[in-house]
Amino acid sequence: MKNENNSRVKIIPLGGLEQIGMNMTVIEFEESIIVVDCGLAFPGDDMLGIDLVIPDVTYLKENMSKVKGFIITHGHEDHIGALPYILKEVNIPIYGTKLTIALIEHKLKESNMMKNTKRKVVKYGQQINLGCFRIEFIRTNHSIADAASLAIYSPAGILVHTGDFKVDYTPVFGDMIDLQRFGEIGKKGVLALMCDSTNALRPGFTMSERTVGKTFDNIFAEHKTSRIIVATFASNVDRVQQIINSAYKYGRKVIIEGRSMVNVIGTASELGYIKIPENTLIDIENMKNYTDEQIVMITTGSQGESMAALSRMASSIHKKVTIKPADTIILSSTPIPGNEKAVSRIINELSMKGAEVIFQDTHVSGHACQEEIKLIYSLVRPKYAVPIHGEFRHRKAQAELARNLGIPKENTIIMNSGDVLELGNDSCEITGHVQNGGILVDGLGVGDVGNIVLRDRQNLSENGIIIVVLTLEKYSNQLLAGPDIVSRGFVYVRESEDLMDEAKTIVSEAVEECLKRNVSDWGKIKNVIKESLSDYLWKRMKRDPIILPIIMEV
Amino acid sequence: MKNENNSRVKIIPLGGLEQIGMNMTVIEFEESIIVVDCGLAFPGDDMLGIDLVIPDVTYLKENMSKVKGFIITHGHEDHIGALPYILKEVNIPIYGTKLTIALIEHKLKESNMMKNTKRKVVKYGQQINLGCFRIEFIRTNHSIADAASLAIYSPAGILVHTGDFKVDYTPVFGDMIDLQRFGEIGKKGVLALMCDSTNALRPGFTMSERTVGKTFDNIFAEHKTSRIIVATFASNVDRVQQIINSAYKYGRKVIIEGRSMVNVIGTASELGYIKIPENTLIDIENMKNYTDEQIVMITTGSQGESMAALSRMASSIHKKVTIKPADTIILSSTPIPGNEKAVSRIINELSMKGAEVIFQDTHVSGHACQEEIKLIYSLVRPKYAVPIHGEFRHRKAQAELARNLGIPKENTIIMNSGDVLELGNDSCEITGHVQNGGILVDGLGVGDVGNIVLRDRQNLSENGIIIVVLTLEKYSNQLLAGPDIVSRGFVYVRESEDLMDEAKTIVSEAVEECLKRNVSDWGKIKNVIKESLSDYLWKRMKRDPIILPIIMEV
Repeated sequence: MKNENNSRVKIIPLGGLEQIGMNMTVIEFEESIIVVDCGLAFPGDDMLGIDLVIPDVTYLKENMSKVKGFIITHGHEDHIGALPYILKEVNIPIYGTKLTIALIEHKLKESNMMKNTKRKVVKYGQQINLGCFRIEFIRTNHSIADAASLAIYSPAGILVHTGDFKVDYTPVFGDMIDLQRFGEIGKKGVLALMCDSTNALRPGFTMSERTVGKTFDNIFAEHKTSRIIVATFASNVDRVQQIINSAYKYGRKVIIEGRSMVNVIGTASELGYIKIPENTLIDIENMKNYTDEQIVMITTGSQGESMAALSRMASSIHKKVTIKPADTIILSSTPIPGNEKAVSRIINELSMKGAEVIFQDTHVSGHACQEEIKLIYSLVRPKYAVPIHGEFRHRKAQAELARNLGIPKENTIIMNSGDVLELGNDSCEITGHVQNGGILVDGLGVGDVGNIVLRDRQNLSENGIIIVVLTLEKYSNQLLAGPDIVSRGFVYVRESEDLMDEAKTIVSEAVEECLKRNVSDWGKIKNVIKESLSDYLWKRMKRDPIILPIIMEV
Repeated sequence: MKNENNSRVKIIPLGGLEQIGMNMTVIEFEESIIVVDCGLAFPGDDMLGIDLVIPDVTYLKENMSKVKGFIITHGHEDHIGALPYILKEVNIPIYGTKLTIALIEHKLKESNMMKNTKRKVVKYGQQINLGCFRIEFIRTNHSIADAASLAIYSPAGILVHTGDFKVDYTPVFGDMIDLQRFGEIGKKGVLALMCDSTNALRPGFTMSERTVGKTFDNIFAEHKTSRIIVATFASNVDRVQQIINSAYKYGRKVIIEGRSMVNVIGTASELGYIKIPENTLIDIENMKNYTDEQIVMITTGSQGESMAALSRMASSIHKKVTIKPADTIILSSTPIPGNEKAVSRIINELSMKGAEVIFQDTHVSGHACQEEIKLIYSLVRPKYAVPIHGEFRHRKAQAELARNLGIPKENTIIMNSGDVLELGNDSCEITGHVQNGGILVDGLGVGDVGNIVLRDRQNLSENGIIIVVLTLEKYSNQLLAGPDIVSRGFVYVRESEDLMDEAKTIVSEAVEECLKRNVSDWGKIKNVIKESLSDYLWKRMKRDPIILPIIMEV
């Protein structure tokens, strides 16, 4: 299997690097392209009003004839979430394991796209041929069942892509990661390893998901008399399984609450990925027929998301659940960076209602720490290390691990989105750069909000807007009405009447001065309005709202 | 000293509870009021465009004749920052230790308020009389020198207020917390302990500030050939002292960079709170005369603040410092909740420039953990526990610690801002509630941005604004011009011309329909415009911008 030729395979990440989430990697060899994952990203703080972000696939559209299929590693939003958008432009078959395809199908149904999309369920160990590539799905572990790593056999050599992974020797569902197969493929000679870097800064090993089950048992044993509410990620099916196990053990009924929780657990349960003992699940409507100590509720909202079920309970706007002083509430997740404050807020709100909130020791990561990363490198023994998944600092940390394991510095490559990396047995080189980036989705609009709109939103959010309207007479340029001043997000006008009156005087004088001097160029008049008002407001208030002059002509 | 009477003292927190930062506690007995601390808060995520938040002191203004003075525990912004604003309305003397008063004076000079403000420097152990209160300043430790705890002797009994504190047996500057005096006062019998709760959820002891010095020494020893840049809090004078110590030890010159860093270190150095060996400090302009291994730069921006020096270096807009691949950059602080993402961003930016970024093990907290809190309770042995400083969950955790130490549940009180707690030897009761809250400061405007303006800013930031202008003829109500549509922060108009054209047609038809039906009420016309446009945009785009109709009359 060793590659004796000089051919080179291209790796082009279209997302997932600078923009966390939004995972998408293009693998290209001559006339064949496959795309690993098709994820969305949640908007950053600076993307005001944006619902989600999807990758720019201009490169795929320009090479449509080559593109053979999406290979999806697992069913998390940052790996499947952009499919309903991207498939509209790049309609190619999707390959994934059973649960992954089922979760994708749920999305396609919502978007009415089932008919036009080819899907194929692939089993671990199975190999599929796409163009000149052969792709093998390898069993791995992650915080969702049916996660796969990939061995991509190309004419230039073998690429191993871990997807998101951890090494769990005692997984809750299914078997442990197929380390033997990683070793076997490694023995054949692997050109490059693309390995998950998320936890590359953390020493040691990530604990088994099963350890969380013991913690749940302990908490259930210590809180026999209170209602228990557990918030976690809907997609963490194994976590939900363990909560159900503890519930069953301690004779409690289980209520599933929150839209995505109901969806994912429904799908997982239909396919047999979660086992719920008979007569355990009850409908939220029947909660009233049970006492507190007979109930466990599993809900969304562990990240403090303002619209999720737990958040609505905390702020007393959930229609069916009222938090009581005796409740025990478990947050079974760690805040994703950026969500810390929202999570604190929810803990405070729940505590103020008298509930006991437990937010430590009921979560383990789904990603490999340093020792696991070293293990995979040692099994695969790649020629080149191409760290993926994670911020720059995480990928840099993995590159350092790789170098410590003996991979020469020049063979560890930290890529940027859009970089074209050409890899061959005797060379590794970034040979180009293709269009890439995040396309912003706002409501039904895809890509119609760009930097100018975002900059306006930022300005509006910080300073508000002042609109100055006036009506001029055609030809004569006489002032017929106005200038009138209207503001939003600037000051509370009723309490700042003086200010607004003065502002109006300033603008009126500036306009009159213009007209007196027979300035007929509206652009100039608008500039004079902007400048005079802007100067005044800065001097008087040290504020800088957007000033929007509008001139009408009659 | 035991209180044998039935008199009661009032404790009224005006800030610092729901609103973290903005510390201010009113202590009242009959005709005497003293105010402990006068801090500001930094705006929350939902306070768009706000610069800072100060406490509402309506209660003080209504009781001006009683108010005797501000007692300031230490010189951090969340304890002194609101003084320049509040003094304008409540001009009373300020009492504090030497460094605290010096830092306040720096603020007063900037606001041109030195003349009209009485200040008095108080020494540890010294007692001052204000109305019926006697206040003693007790030496404590914190992440700034000259921090004080307070013993407040009132006719109803003794109150002990820890301020922000930790127990540091080996402080960098000055002596350790005066535990003996806490014990001595405890022996007299203390009515209530108001104790810092910030770290009440953390088990164990907070490490000594001095341990960080050893870490710096190690890092300096390991990075002898690179330029070292350390970012930390300007106010953490002891941290800066230790960086200077390491610099001196390893033969490096020190550059102080960043406005607040220059200010605070200047003040601290003048007063002798920091010792800088001769010929150690150099001006940033002279950096070019030294090699990289001869330089340490101490700078602001460890929290990722976008305008601070480190952030400007990271994004290549600092005028005097360019990050080089060989630089070693130390972030000597832990992200304050909410700043995690900004800190990550800076680490990534600096790493991308090739610098080595060290962000672990170079910080210890300035606040007491559980074992220190227990120690203070055991020395003071108060009748009542009134946890202060910290979110609800932190104060609740301290209340639980107090109960574990034997204070009865009914004697541990978790207060809300504005609550009036009346404490006597035989009773403890919340007897009322006074006006309180955060006053928003935006530019020079204090309090002119309220909920309506913030809600507008929120809407503007998420959805943008569409302005519809039209001119009507007086009396006849004929449409003379428009409707014209202008938007900001909605869509990029050049790429959405169709949409805007359609929107204009929708609005035109709606207005014409109104006028045909002789609707002359402008309010109604505006509503018709809003509704028709809003319906259209929601159906077409699932978006909901602010729609602002403006009618002019000629």
